[in-house]
Amino acid sequence: MQILKVRSHHREELVEFTDQVRQKLNESGATEGIVVLYVQHTTAGLTVNENADPDVPRDMLHALRTLIPQHGMDFRHGEENSDAHIKASIAGSSLTIPFAGGELLLGRWQGIFLCEFDGGRERKVIMMVR
Amino acid sequence: MQILKVRSHHREELVEFTDQVRQKLNESGATEGIVVLYVQHTTAGLTVNENADPDVPRDMLHALRTLIPQHGMDFRHGEENSDAHIKASIAGSSLTIPFAGGELLLGRWQGIFLCEFDGGRERKVIMMVR
Amino acid sequence: MQILKVRSHHREELVEFTDQVRQKLNESGATEGIVVLYVQHTTAGLTVNENADPDVPRDMLHALRTLIPQHGMDFRHGEENSDAHIKASIAGSSLTIPFAGGELLLGRWQGIFLCEFDGGRERKVIMMVR
Repeated sequence: MQILKVRSHHREELVEFTDQVRQKLNESGATEGIVVLYVQHTTAGLTVNENADPDVPRDMLHALRTLIPQHGMDFRHGEENSDAHIKASIAGSSLTIPFAGGELLLGRWQGIFLCEFDGGRERKVIMMVR
Repeated sequence: MQILKVRSHHREELVEFTDQVRQKLNESGATEGIVVLYVQHTTAGLTVNENADPDVPRDMLHALRTLIPQHGMDFRHGEENSDAHIKASIAGSSLTIPFAGGELLLGRWQGIFLCEFDGGRERKVIMMVR
Repeated sequence: MQILKVRSHHREELVEFTDQVRQKLNESGATEGIVVLYVQHTTAGLTVNENADPDVPRDMLHALRTLIPQHGMDFRHGEENSDAHIKASIAGSSLTIPFAGGELLLGRWQGIFLCEFDGGRERKVIMMVR
């Protein structure tokens, strides 16, 4: 079990941390199996998506914000971050990614992102290799 | 492999069952690994989110209902529960949660919820420790 | 580790491939554990939902398209498929399904679907048994 730290700088941000996962996987010495990533927060999630064009993460946050704005949806939770809790559950709290030959089996355009919806903060992601 | 039973009482409800998972994990005697939870239904999902303020689950169901209402979206499925099928896929049918020292590695505010979208019913959740 | 190929024929389509997963699981000879499925693409996802009435997948794609249309949301990504990237992250890139007695523990109405959002194409899904 390993703990990764991922830092966000804005309220909403997709922060790629593929290299950190790759490095920890290499250190583990495991050759084939699954990497499980798990975010220990309720206003951030995890996703895999394109890491080539920064407009993809931008468009993703824009669409989610359009559908679920921070204000104006008759939310009752007093911290004014219900939108962040909801987006976190839509993204999901865990990722499971297979690896073989010691390498993550990511597709050509895929990167691993922390989905920050109530930052900027330092977030903890648990990594388990199985 | 274990079977958990989770009871809902309303059409839409987030039912926390963290304690059941914790108890079954303790019974398994396993110390480090992953817990996989899997819901065997197509109108209910699973999620991890805040279990402190009941307004968080309330706001989540409210937002999903606003975006995907039961009626008025030109759905064709005859059982009038297409909204529930869609929300179930958005939440997702499985959760993977790491544990170490025999304890679930949940964050301080995280609880494990069945997302009921077409209840009240008794739902079956498969639990596997690996 | 196995590679499954799933063929879509439309821009948006839910393509069931439960039988392929079942066959590969049988070939593996494993009796109890988890099947991890992982899609190596950023405009397609995976989900479990009802495979009995084709109106359920139809309604799911219809609702997602209503909420996140291909055009008109002020997207900036130049390939005009931001909607597909976003829907892929909402569905998710992986599934984890338990099995016992050599059989997938799917519910009675559950099937395994590739969620195609930018097809038709041949898509690669990694399958790992643990």
